[in-house]
Amino acid sequence: MDESTLSRRLGVAVRKRRVALELSQDKFADVIEMHRAYYASIERGERNVTMWTLWRVAQGLGVKPSDLLGDANL
Amino acid sequence: MDESTLSRRLGVAVRKRRVALELSQDKFADVIEMHRAYYASIERGERNVTMWTLWRVAQGLGVKPSDLLGDANL
Repeated sequence: MDESTLSRRLGVAVRKRRVALELSQDKFADVIEMHRAYYASIERGERNVTMWTLWRVAQGLGVKPSDLLGDANL
Repeated sequence: MDESTLSRRLGVAVRKRRVALELSQDKFADVIEMHRAYYASIERGERNVTMWTLWRVAQGLGVKPSDLLGDANL
C-alpha cells in the first residue's frame, strides 16, 4: 500500500456513497460546506485527507468513517 | 463532535491497542518509523491525523484502520 493507492480507494468508496444518494459532487460539497474543487479531488483520490475531513464527509453521507473505510477494505 | 474530541477518541483507541501489544510508546514509534514525540501526541489526541498516518499506525498494530475507528465508535 502506498499513500496514493490508499487515497484512491477511499475516493472510490466516497464517490459510490455520494452517487447512491443521487447528489451531484457540487451539491454534496455545498451540503457539507466544503470547497467544491477540494471535494472533487477527494473523490479522485488525490487527497490524503485528515480524520476530521473524513468525519465531515461521512456525516454528510449519513454513515460512520469506519463504514467508508470498510467499503474500501481499509 | 468537534475535531479535538475526534482526535482524543482515536488516540485512546490507538493507545489501548499499543498497550495490549506490550510495547512502549517509544518502541512502537521506532517500529513504525515515526518520530516519538509525534506518535506520543497522537495518543494524547492532539493530532488530526491523515489517512496515511492512520494507515501506518494501524499496520504497526496489526489491524485495519477501520478496526481502530470501530474501537473508537467512529
